[in-house]
Amino acid sequence: MLLCEGKLDSHNAKTAVGLLIWCPEDVVAVVDSTSAGKDLHELVGFGRGIPIVATVAEAAGCGANQLIVGVANIGGVFVPGYRELISQAIKLRCDIVNGLHELLTQDGALVALAAEYGVRLYDLRVVPEGIPCGTNLARRLPNSRLLTVGTDCNVGKMCAALALTREFVRRGYDAKFIPTGQTGIMIAGDGLCIDRAISDFAAGVAEKLVLDQAGHQWLFIEGQGSIDHPSYSGVTLSLLHGSAPQALILCHVHSRSRRRHDEGSPLLPLGELIRLYETISTPVLPAKVVGVGVNSRGLSDAEARDELRRIQDEVDLPATDPLRFGVDNLTEAVLRFFAG
Amino acid sequence: MLLCEGKLDSHNAKTAVGLLIWCPEDVVAVVDSTSAGKDLHELVGFGRGIPIVATVAEAAGCGANQLIVGVANIGGVFVPGYRELISQAIKLRCDIVNGLHELLTQDGALVALAAEYGVRLYDLRVVPEGIPCGTNLARRLPNSRLLTVGTDCNVGKMCAALALTREFVRRGYDAKFIPTGQTGIMIAGDGLCIDRAISDFAAGVAEKLVLDQAGHQWLFIEGQGSIDHPSYSGVTLSLLHGSAPQALILCHVHSRSRRRHDEGSPLLPLGELIRLYETISTPVLPAKVVGVGVNSRGLSDAEARDELRRIQDEVDLPATDPLRFGVDNLTEAVLRFFAG
Repeated sequence: MLLCEGKLDSHNAKTAVGLLIWCPEDVVAVVDSTSAGKDLHELVGFGRGIPIVATVAEAAGCGANQLIVGVANIGGVFVPGYRELISQAIKLRCDIVNGLHELLTQDGALVALAAEYGVRLYDLRVVPEGIPCGTNLARRLPNSRLLTVGTDCNVGKMCAALALTREFVRRGYDAKFIPTGQTGIMIAGDGLCIDRAISDFAAGVAEKLVLDQAGHQWLFIEGQGSIDHPSYSGVTLSLLHGSAPQALILCHVHSRSRRRHDEGSPLLPLGELIRLYETISTPVLPAKVVGVGVNSRGLSDAEARDELRRIQDEVDLPATDPLRFGVDNLTEAVLRFFAG
Repeated sequence: MLLCEGKLDSHNAKTAVGLLIWCPEDVVAVVDSTSAGKDLHELVGFGRGIPIVATVAEAAGCGANQLIVGVANIGGVFVPGYRELISQAIKLRCDIVNGLHELLTQDGALVALAAEYGVRLYDLRVVPEGIPCGTNLARRLPNSRLLTVGTDCNVGKMCAALALTREFVRRGYDAKFIPTGQTGIMIAGDGLCIDRAISDFAAGVAEKLVLDQAGHQWLFIEGQGSIDHPSYSGVTLSLLHGSAPQALILCHVHSRSRRRHDEGSPLLPLGELIRLYETISTPVLPAKVVGVGVNSRGLSDAEARDELRRIQDEVDLPATDPLRFGVDNLTEAVLRFFAG
C-alpha cells in the first residue's frame, strides 16, 4: 500500500506517483481518507483501477504486506499523523518502506513495535558510511553515460531516465538505470540517495554508483534538483561532476514558469539552462544536452504535440513527453550522439 | 598544542598553519617527532619562535592545556597513531579539538578516557541536526556579502576572508568573518562546516550562517573547494547559492597549475574561472569577482610583485598576496564595488 494520507496529488505524492507509473502491478491500494473512493487515475494520471482507501486496515485487507510512505516533501519530514498510521500497519504485520530524511530506524517506539510484530523497517534515504570523496574516475570509463537534468525539481528526470533505459533494453542494448533518489531506488531495487550524502562525499557517492555498474555499456543516471535552484544546486553539481556523463537530457514541465520552493523565482529559458549545464560540466568532462523531456500533463495530445514542436524549435533539439509519446526520438538522438 | 605528527608541512598541516597565521599567541608548541627541534617558521612560513617538540608530554610541559588536531586530509580520517597521541594528551588533562570527519565523540574508548580525566572532546566538523533546506532568503538581506572562491582547494580562501575582515574592522566598519570550515571555526569561535552538512541541507547551512549574522553590515564568508573541482564542487555551489554574496574574491596559489586530489587535471585559466563563478551565481543573485588573492609563497618580494602585476594584467582586477602585502587594494575595490 502507498501511504498518501491528505497528500494525494502529483506534487506531494511524488513517490507514490512514481511507483504507480513504473510498477503499478505491485500496488494493492493507496491510503488517503480525504480522497477515499475517488478515481486514482483521474486524480494523479496513473494507477487505473487501483483503489483509494480510507484506512491502513482496508489496504491490508486488500492483501498489502508492505506500506510505502508515498509522499516526498521539502526537508523530508513525516507528515503529522503518519507515525500513527505506520504503527497501525506494523500491527497488521506490514513491512515499512520510507524514503524521507526523517528515519523510522531512529524512532525507538517504531523500532520496538516492528520487533514485536516481526516486520522490517527500511530507511532508503540513508547512505552507507565509508564512501570516500570523489576521485574523478568515472570520466575515464569507456561506457556511455547519460544524466537527466532539470529546469527545476520534480520535472520528470527519473521518468526520462527510466523510459530511456527501458527503450534501450527493448532494442537489445546493455542498459542500466542508476537511481539516485528514494523513488528510483524503490523501483529499481538498488542505488543511493545522493541528497542524503554528507556534502563532502556527495560526488563520491555519484562516482560509486557509476563505477559499481561500469560493466554495463549504457548507464542512464537519474538526475536531482537543478543547477540553478538555490536549495539543491549543490546536489545537482555533485551528481554531474561525480558521474561524469557525456550526454544530458534536459527535463521540463510544460506549464512551469517559476521554480518550486523558491519564492516563485522565474525559470531560466531552456537555452540558457542548456548552456549552463554544458558549461559547468566542461572542466570535468564536457557533456552535451542531446534532447528535452517534457511533462505535458494537462494538455490534450494535439496541444502536447504543439508544445513539443515549440520547444524543439526553441532549442533545436528533439523533444518528447516520455510517458505520453515514448522516447523513440530521444533514443535516436542519444545513439546518434554516441556514434558521432 | 597542535598535533601534526609526521605531517608538518603547509599542505597536510593546513589547520595548524591557519592557526599559526591567525592566532599564534594561543599556540604553545607543535608536536611532530619527525621535525622536532627544527625551525617552525622555516618549515611552514609561520609561527616564528614556537617550538616543535617530539611528544605530547613535552608540549604539555610547555603549558599546553588543549590539543588541536592540526592536519586536514582528504576524507578527514585520523592519521594512524593519532588516537594513541590523543589518549596521551587526555591523560595529561588536555581538552581535544578535532576538525576531521572522523569523530572523537564516536570513539567509545576516547569518550570513556575523557570522562575519566575530566576533559572535553570537541568535534568541530559536526553540523547540528534540524537546519532546514535553503529557502533563498540570504539574497534579500540588505547588507554587503563577499565570498572568497578558489581556483582549487587549499589556495587561501580563509586567509583572504580573514584579512579583509580585519582590515574592514581596522577601518571602522561593522564587519564579520563567517567561517565555513574547521580551521575558520577554531579561529573565530563560531561558524559551521558546510562540507559536513547532508547535501540536501548544505545550502540551508550556508544560508543560516548568513542570516544569523545579518545584523552586521559587512560579511566576509570563507569559501570552500572550487566550482570546477569534481570532488568538492557541490559544496562550493551550495555555499555560493546559499549565502548569496554580491561580491567574490578569487583566490589562487601562484605556483599551482594542476588541481589537487584530481589526477593532475590542469587548472582553468583565471579568466575562465571568473566567468564560471559569475555565470553560476546569476540565477540566484548575480555576483561579481572584484579582486584576486594570491598565495605567492616561495617567491621573493620582487618576484611576488611581478606575479601580481601579471595576474592584474591578465584579468584586469586588483590582486594581492593578503599575507605578504595586505589587502588595501582589495579593500578599496570592495568599497568601490558596493558604492557603485
